[in-house]
Amino acid sequence: QVRRILNSDLQAADVAHLLESSPPKERKLLWGLIDEENEGDVLQHLGDEIQSWLLNQMSVQEMANAISDLDTDDVADVLQNLPDKVTQEVLTTMDEQDRDRIEAVLSYPEDTAGGLMNTDTITVRPDITIEVVLRYLRRHRSLPDMTDSLLVVNRRDEFIGSLPINKILVSDGDTTVREVMSTDVVSIDPETTDTQVAQLFERHDLISAPVVESHTHKLLGRITIDDVVDVIREEADHSLLSMAGLDEDEDTFAPALKTSRRRAVWLGINLITAFVASGVIGMFQDTLDKVVALAVLMPIVASMGGIAGSQTLTLVIRGQAIGHLDSGNMGWLVNREFIVGLSNGLLWSVIIALATYIWFQDIQISLIIAIAIVINLIIAVLAGALLPLLLKKLGIDPALAGSVILTTVTDVVGFMAFLGLATVFYL
Amino acid sequence: QVRRILNSDLQAADVAHLLESSPPKERKLLWGLIDEENEGDVLQHLGDEIQSWLLNQMSVQEMANAISDLDTDDVADVLQNLPDKVTQEVLTTMDEQDRDRIEAVLSYPEDTAGGLMNTDTITVRPDITIEVVLRYLRRHRSLPDMTDSLLVVNRRDEFIGSLPINKILVSDGDTTVREVMSTDVVSIDPETTDTQVAQLFERHDLISAPVVESHTHKLLGRITIDDVVDVIREEADHSLLSMAGLDEDEDTFAPALKTSRRRAVWLGINLITAFVASGVIGMFQDTLDKVVALAVLMPIVASMGGIAGSQTLTLVIRGQAIGHLDSGNMGWLVNREFIVGLSNGLLWSVIIALATYIWFQDIQISLIIAIAIVINLIIAVLAGALLPLLLKKLGIDPALAGSVILTTVTDVVGFMAFLGLATVFYL
Ligand SMILES: [Mg+2]
Ligand SMILES: [Mg+2]
Ligand SMILES: [Mg+2]
Ligand SMILES: [Mg+2]
Ligand SMILES: [Mg+2]
Ligand SMILES: [Mg+2]
Ligand SMILES: [Mg+2]
Ligand SMILES: [Mg+2]
Ligand SMILES: [Mg+2]
Ligand SMILES: [Mg+2]
Ligand SMILES: [Mg+2]
Ligand SMILES: [Mg+2]
Ligand SMILES: [Mg+2]
Repeated sequence: QVRRILNSDLQAADVAHLLESSPPKERKLLWGLIDEENEGDVLQHLGDEIQSWLLNQMSVQEMANAISDLDTDDVADVLQNLPDKVTQEVLTTMDEQDRDRIEAVLSYPEDTAGGLMNTDTITVRPDITIEVVLRYLRRHRSLPDMTDSLLVVNRRDEFIGSLPINKILVSDGDTTVREVMSTDVVSIDPETTDTQVAQLFERHDLISAPVVESHTHKLLGRITIDDVVDVIREEADHSLLSMAGLDEDEDTFAPALKTSRRRAVWLGINLITAFVASGVIGMFQDTLDKVVALAVLMPIVASMGGIAGSQTLTLVIRGQAIGHLDSGNMGWLVNREFIVGLSNGLLWSVIIALATYIWFQDIQISLIIAIAIVINLIIAVLAGALLPLLLKKLGIDPALAGSVILTTVTDVVGFMAFLGLATVFYL
Repeated sequence: QVRRILNSDLQAADVAHLLESSPPKERKLLWGLIDEENEGDVLQHLGDEIQSWLLNQMSVQEMANAISDLDTDDVADVLQNLPDKVTQEVLTTMDEQDRDRIEAVLSYPEDTAGGLMNTDTITVRPDITIEVVLRYLRRHRSLPDMTDSLLVVNRRDEFIGSLPINKILVSDGDTTVREVMSTDVVSIDPETTDTQVAQLFERHDLISAPVVESHTHKLLGRITIDDVVDVIREEADHSLLSMAGLDEDEDTFAPALKTSRRRAVWLGINLITAFVASGVIGMFQDTLDKVVALAVLMPIVASMGGIAGSQTLTLVIRGQAIGHLDSGNMGWLVNREFIVGLSNGLLWSVIIALATYIWFQDIQISLIIAIAIVINLIIAVLAGALLPLLLKKLGIDPALAGSVILTTVTDVVGFMAFLGLATVFYL
């Protein structure tokens, strides 16, 4: 019965979701029960890591069979997960037309409009009538998925406009395509990044958009919302996961050994920063030896800085991702964050100083921690605001490196300010 | 010229994006330049906080005018941002049909299918022919946005199937709707959460889906992909931002005072946890007084635990969000995380012990830190895996509370294990 459920009751996307939600052993078992003709459809819906793992166990002929019924963009996606040599072998098993189409998509990086596009466009000429268009469409057994408009091209295959299906339905049969087509269409250059593509679709509520080479005006293909939704989901996952040093292509149920190895790297990087912070504390051993209360209180200074900085960092990283922040308004933001850091620094330093006084009955240490908190909170918000910009300029992903660097800064500044001031006061 | 650009060159969504990317003063200026008839369209594209702020400055009549041209779902969205009394006043300015439609949407919570739906459906009967459908459609001046299928209902307004527009185009004129309609359509109950709606759209690559009351089979409306894309974006923002105690509806360019006040709350919560950690350290003041190296090294134990735990926590929160995790596979995951925590604990404890020995030439302290690291890493990954489940059961948002609680656990366990062991060894 499981076999029947997998192969006919459930849709491919649901089967893929089931596989992704299964630990390795169950996953292998379930995959074995899937009929060969359904394998390709399930494959394309799987995350990259699981996909590669399954592909590795297939022969070139099996792969070619599995992906033969997929859309060009999905075939390209699968092939991009294979070693180049294997990709070439799979391509040679295809007929020439398919191969040409797929190579056109493969010639663009995976994260560009060219890599996202599909070549299954229905094109019409501007001078024919709606009646003729209707007759032409009726000759198809079905239209490609997500066809919300036909693309209008001239004799030289240059894109000149788009004819929404809904316009066809409400227009008179003897009007020409040119009369009803829209010419102010969002058309996308193949080099556009997928992030920009997603922003265009989100903002203009598109279902599909033509991909047009901007110099030659040649129509290359079209991008559809279902693939853009996947881009949006991937980018969101990326922002969230890379803050914890995880990868969005990672299998949730990866085996323990593989997971350990990956996590070890991140722990190692953080260990280095932890030793840096300890090194700073180590500079003040004499002071700590004299006033043990300093050791008790110092994590408060560091952690308040870390929290304040992370808030700004997260806000700025998200602002960059959705395109809210640029050099024009960054100045205002840095200024506001400074005020926020200063005012929260003043507020909480008073409260922390009071709590410290109640605990240790020591006015000096209360004063020292108050000053250190104000200093660390200000540095924290400034670092949180400026770090993502700096990292982006250096070509480093702020979501990945941002919080590691930030907490190093707030630890170092926090310990330095608190223990440094204490050393000045007490020695 | 700015006025011209805002009102005719740019689309409403782009103007909204421009407003969202502007500091308060510029924003006020730009908003003043927008023509009254465009205000509603821009408003609906703005984030909740900015929207409320602008609405607060408008009279009831101005609001009613601004939203009069919007879709029901968008009107409902705007009204949900207003105090109930104002909502009622705005509703009374509308004609009865509009009011009924909007009240139908408003009767469902904002984050359900009912709150997301639109009432602009085109319905047809099953026994008419495609020819008649085409003639019926030609009587419309345009079809509602995102109309990829007509909805088929019987005499009692019960939903019985859906007729894709593309099917209409490729079918013979004298076939009946019943012959070509699809009956295995994803239909959505109005009580379905928006998260589930988003998962359905993502998995089945939908453009629109009917909302059908599951007991009565009555067709209530339909949900379209553009609004689902907004849900996906909002949920992604929520996961990312609430980990730092921020709200996804928040204005990136909120004024300093407002921002300070909001951030202060989060800093206060974290301050309490920081004092808890300090309290733990305070229990071991005598030990710290004897061996100052402990004060230097203790942040390493706490921070390694925090990092390891955050990785698991983030993975589990994301797994919950996309529906990968349930009670059936959680056991496997907890088990794997335990192995990961143990093996990374062993690996890094050796390295940390070595580094400690080189630094302090003290074999005892090296041994103590090694054991403490292993303990804290294991507790950290277990807490990271189980905490989100526990919080979800208690009705608390894991993305918001998870990392605060987790780092408290790893700080407390880290300091307790390290300083506790040291106390046993040295005293
Ligand atoms: Mg891929
Ligand atoms: Mg691709
Ligand atoms: Mg949109
Ligand atoms: Mg596709
Ligand atoms: Mg796809
Ligand atoms: Mg990727
Ligand atoms: Mg910390
Ligand atoms: Mg809203
Ligand atoms: Mg709504
Ligand atoms: Mg999909
Ligand atoms: Mg809508
Ligand atoms: Mg909307
Ligand atoms: Mg919200």
